[in-house]
Amino acid sequence: MTQTLTVPTSLEWHEDYLLILNQQKLPNIVEYIKLTSIEEYYDAIITLKVRGAPAIGLTAAYGLAQSACQYEVKTLEEFIDLFQREKKYLAASRPTAVNLVWALNRLEKVLEKVSSVNEAKTNLLHAAIQLHAEDEAVCRLIGENGLSVLKDKQIVMTICNAGSIATSKYGTALAPFHLGREKGKAFQVYACETRPVLQGARLTAWELQQSGVDVTLITDSMAAHTMKEKGVEAVIVGADRISANGDTANKIGTSMLSILCKHFNIPFYVAAPSSTFDLSSLDGNDIPIEERNREEITTIDGTVIAPENVHVYNPAFDVTPHELITGIITEKGILYPRFEESIQQNIGIKQ
Amino acid sequence: MTQTLTVPTSLEWHEDYLLILNQQKLPNIVEYIKLTSIEEYYDAIITLKVRGAPAIGLTAAYGLAQSACQYEVKTLEEFIDLFQREKKYLAASRPTAVNLVWALNRLEKVLEKVSSVNEAKTNLLHAAIQLHAEDEAVCRLIGENGLSVLKDKQIVMTICNAGSIATSKYGTALAPFHLGREKGKAFQVYACETRPVLQGARLTAWELQQSGVDVTLITDSMAAHTMKEKGVEAVIVGADRISANGDTANKIGTSMLSILCKHFNIPFYVAAPSSTFDLSSLDGNDIPIEERNREEITTIDGTVIAPENVHVYNPAFDVTPHELITGIITEKGILYPRFEESIQQNIGIKQ
Repeated sequence: MTQTLTVPTSLEWHEDYLLILNQQKLPNIVEYIKLTSIEEYYDAIITLKVRGAPAIGLTAAYGLAQSACQYEVKTLEEFIDLFQREKKYLAASRPTAVNLVWALNRLEKVLEKVSSVNEAKTNLLHAAIQLHAEDEAVCRLIGENGLSVLKDKQIVMTICNAGSIATSKYGTALAPFHLGREKGKAFQVYACETRPVLQGARLTAWELQQSGVDVTLITDSMAAHTMKEKGVEAVIVGADRISANGDTANKIGTSMLSILCKHFNIPFYVAAPSSTFDLSSLDGNDIPIEERNREEITTIDGTVIAPENVHVYNPAFDVTPHELITGIITEKGILYPRFEESIQQNIGIKQ
Repeated sequence: MTQTLTVPTSLEWHEDYLLILNQQKLPNIVEYIKLTSIEEYYDAIITLKVRGAPAIGLTAAYGLAQSACQYEVKTLEEFIDLFQREKKYLAASRPTAVNLVWALNRLEKVLEKVSSVNEAKTNLLHAAIQLHAEDEAVCRLIGENGLSVLKDKQIVMTICNAGSIATSKYGTALAPFHLGREKGKAFQVYACETRPVLQGARLTAWELQQSGVDVTLITDSMAAHTMKEKGVEAVIVGADRISANGDTANKIGTSMLSILCKHFNIPFYVAAPSSTFDLSSLDGNDIPIEERNREEITTIDGTVIAPENVHVYNPAFDVTPHELITGIITEKGILYPRFEESIQQNIGIKQ
């Protein structure tokens, strides 16, 4: 089988439809779906066909813009009224995803400066395309900055999927690997499978394979042994929220990796856009940790793997304390300790 | 549903058959199987219906003894000849399990002191029953000694299944929980699911539920977060082999727990019978680590969870360095650092 090696993307705008990668079916089936109606966009988000905060935000923006282009109304007031109703509808699809509302708000702002329905339609679509391009530029910068710290490292470990398919392109933690591959640098990546939802096995392993990055899959329990036996030189992970002091919430298992890194004296990097910083949260204690349903642990694709009625603890995220983080790689540069100061200087107020 | 709370066992001798728990079908189906012919014993071991080094050894011993009782031979020479052939047959079922050969050798020794076929038959069966009783006594002592170090601890974490169903009764790492429950002490146990083979989810969670121990299932990636958030007070694990300096090979993930314990200042205990010590291995570097097949990671009960052809690294065990071990709980007492000395003094030459 000959296969072209490319960085996979999850979103492609085609003038009258958005083509999305159905991430629910990975890695067994690579299926692309066309979205045209607002209901299809809503469904794609709520059923997790599209996932990753940036990718969700972009999908919603395209959905709202495309739908608005089809409004058959006479006045700008009617247009805005319909727009607001559909904005609320899409915003409710994943109420906890901050990027979703942020992207929809960016579209809404466009309407402040338009004087006709036609101008509104054109500018909304333009704004969605603009958001998409901006996100790709941010990810590319994170990748470039990531490459600058990983330049002398070859064997790197990651967890979950802070990848190309979670963003417009390249991703955050995985961006240096994709860009490195494009520039002829060969990383050897160990991907932790990331129980319970297995984003590492299902998504990261697939994504890196697609772009020709050398990836080896391990269970999360093998992280310590692999670091020692395979000579892991760096760990790089994404982030869901970063506090003002650098404490970082990310997928469950991340704080485990940071502790193992300290033990083995391996640098531990977080890669995230500046929009991930939440300066209203002073430290990790301010970050609430979502507990998810028991079935994520007791079943895998419907197969029961634990006794009925067993107690389960299923936190979806953990907080890595700032003192275990070597550096935070952003599109604005690499932040080093003391993070309170470097974050204040480089990120400033949340966008 | 009313259920009697009892420590589950995996082997029960019934004069003309051995009743075994089919561990392959746990936790969904609790099935017991009668073994009578030597082929049935062989099959039970090779297909992993019975697992855990001590339980495998006892099953093989009963199988060989029961089969020998049915030999229709006239002379002791014919008897011994047949015995040796069947001993070789059973020993080949799991060639790496040390306990299996050790148990069969114990039976063979019986034949040195018999003068008739009938005496041989009686003494062989008696030896198998004796081995069974000895193993239970050893596990009970490990449990008692374990209770003495865990006496002021309530919240304890474990990995894999060093449990009652892997031995004659009580197990090793799980023995203090079962005995504690019998004595009215209520432990709160966090069981790591133990990917890839999920012995924690399938076996330990089930076993502790059966005997009424409060058990909560987590993924291995949740160990660090759980230690911190739930206030874990001790970790206790089993062992596959312990070197002369205390370095301990056990299920993959164990060394990860020992590093997390050091970080959080939590005591880390190994529980094992003295037969687990291998004084011919000077340290962990002498212990070979078995790598198992890729399907254990890429599929779960036949469901594919990773892309085709992805590289996989699947070490079945890891080595916990002795300096991360607080104490080793044996039937002969609790060994503390310096382990080189305490092992030499208490264990001496391998039995």
